[in-house]
Formats: sequence, structure tokens, C-alpha cells
Amino acid sequence: MPLAAVDLPRAYRLLNHGPVTLVSSAHGGRRNIMAAAWAMPLDFDPPKVAVVIDKSTLTRELIEASGIFALNVPCRAQAQATLAVGSISGRDVAGGDKFAHCGLAARPGTALAVPLLDGCVGWLECRVIAEPHNQGRYDLFIGEVVAASADTDVFRDGRWHFEDAPAAKRTLHYVAGGAFYVTGEALDLGE
Amino acid sequence: MPLAAVDLPRAYRLLNHGPVTLVSSAHGGRRNIMAAAWAMPLDFDPPKVAVVIDKSTLTRELIEASGIFALNVPCRAQAQATLAVGSISGRDVAGGDKFAHCGLAARPGTALAVPLLDGCVGWLECRVIAEPHNQGRYDLFIGEVVAASADTDVFRDGRWHFEDAPAAKRTLHYVAGGAFYVTGEALDLGE
Repeated sequence: MPLAAVDLPRAYRLLNHGPVTLVSSAHGGRRNIMAAAWAMPLDFDPPKVAVVIDKSTLTRELIEASGIFALNVPCRAQAQATLAVGSISGRDVAGGDKFAHCGLAARPGTALAVPLLDGCVGWLECRVIAEPHNQGRYDLFIGEVVAASADTDVFRDGRWHFEDAPAAKRTLHYVAGGAFYVTGEALDLGE
Repeated sequence: MPLAAVDLPRAYRLLNHGPVTLVSSAHGGRRNIMAAAWAMPLDFDPPKVAVVIDKSTLTRELIEASGIFALNVPCRAQAQATLAVGSISGRDVAGGDKFAHCGLAARPGTALAVPLLDGCVGWLECRVIAEPHNQGRYDLFIGEVVAASADTDVFRDGRWHFEDAPAAKRTLHYVAGGAFYVTGEALDLGE
């Protein structure tokens, strides 16, 4: 899979079309990954993101301890894995490693000590901007994106190019109850 | 167009798949509408949303004055209108009415005094939860959804049903520079 860094001022475009994301985290020898549909860009440059992470999750514990996380953008080939990591808690998994439990391979972040899920098509490595009120009241985390990368088969020159890539590499939009929509037809009205 | 109210605990599903939204607002005899790709659900019940609204916009001025706004979910047939209201400011429009300038029809909100754009497929009427720090530092607004409605051709029984409706009623995902993706194929993995 051909990977390349994404220029930080273009990193928001990995999320701009509203795909479901997977939040990965690590701290003190533990790591985890969970699904999050409630994630969006919050600023262009320096790029920031907002993501909702419930208090009950192991992900929340690891992020609060480490101050870092990654948003992984999964593709159609990973729909089953996206559903799996969104349906079980890292706390309930034998050995405590959801990656191993689900048979998912990860590599280290390029800038931060967070696992990046193999097979995804985009990754944003983020440092938490501490906002205790938002975290406590809304489960809302704000992160500054310090590194971003993408699969150049589908994201290059600062934008997605799903049209000329395998359908398996299209991103996913989560509905509920195991139902997704795949990112569809491109509509270019110029400007 | 067949409209129906959406049960509030299901209102988040109008946004869960990450469509571009149009933010409508009104105050003191003025009204406005702008595009916002950076919007997401923030809670289920009572439903809340988060949306980024830049300080330079007329929308921001009207929402800060009225404390209310609506998120309209446009469909493919409205891609050109979505681009238009996202490209010009209500401040620069003759007569100060972007609806009139763009030839867009609106009706009154069902619960709040906000205009709802005709031809959209979903509407969320929201009351701002005042968070001055978020608004000032991140341009981030949090709203409680007090009423929601949808076009039952494509949203009924608490979820989207694009599969058996005209393609013109599919929702849109914004990329940049006038480029969108249309919501694509359904992928149902059950649970």
C-alpha cells in the first residue's frame, strides 16, 4: 500500500466528507481502537479535530493518560472490522488488546506514540488540547493534528480520488445497527 | 414532498453519516443560510449537535443574537445551491437576503423561529447551549435539538432509505473547491 504524508493544511480534507473514523490510543504498554462516527475537522492551519469519546471506554482512559490519539479512516474492505471494534470494549477482551483480539495489524505513528491501523486510507495523529469542561460535560475532545498520512491510491494532491481506485478503498459513513453507506459518486461543480 | 417529524432520540441519525449541512438563522427581520461541512451529532437524548461557524459570517451574528439555528440537510438536487450559499456572504447580497438572492424558498421552523430550506431532506431545529469559550476560541457552537423533521421519501422509521428513492434525494458530502461526493451504496452488516 503506497503511503505518503499529507501536508498539514490539507489534513482536514481527510475528514471533511464525514467518514466514520477509528480512534486509536496507547499508554503504559496498553493500546486500543474504537469506532467514532462523531468526529469532524475544527480548524485548517494548524489543523484541529473534534471527536466524541464516551467516559465508559478504555480509549478514554488511555487518551486521558497519554494526551494523544490518532483518527484512522477505514475503507470499505474494513467495514466488518469497523463494526467489530465499535461493538466490543477493550476492557472485555482476553489479554486486553483489541487489535490482537480482532486480528488487526498496526504500525507506530510517524510523530506520536499511537498505533496506526494497517489497511486504512487516512491517518491523523493528534495531540489533545486540554479542555476539561468539554471533556467532562460533552465527552468532547479537541486535538491538534501534528502529522497526517494517506494511501496515495485514494488520497493525493491534497484530495480524495476514489473514482480511479478499487471500490474496496472507498471510505464509509456510519448509520446505525451495522449499516453503513459507502462514499459514492463524485460531483464536481467547480467554483 | 412528504414531511414528518423525527423522534428526538433518532434525530442524530440525520447527521450520523457525515453529510454537508446548511445552517439557517434569523433575527430582527433578517435571515441567512450558509454551508457548513463541520457539523456532527454530540449526544443522543436529549440530542445535541456541534457545528463550526466562523466569526466573519452574518450567520454567526444572527445566531449570537437569537440563540437559535437550524441545520438543514441538502440533497443532490441542491448541490449548486449548497455551493452558492457557501460561496457568498449574506453581508454582500443586495437586500441582505441570501434566500431571495439565490432564489431559495423557506418555511418557518416547527418549534423555533428559524427558516427551514425547502427541498432539503432533513432539518434539525436547535437552541444554542451557551459556551462562550468554545465559541470564542474554536468558533464551535453546541446546540440542543428541540425539533427534527425529514422527507419521508428518504428518511423514515428512524433511518435513511436512499436505496428506494430518486438519486436526486441522496445527501451530499463536501470535499473542497466545489467538489462533493454523493452518499453511495448501502452496506448492511447487521449486528
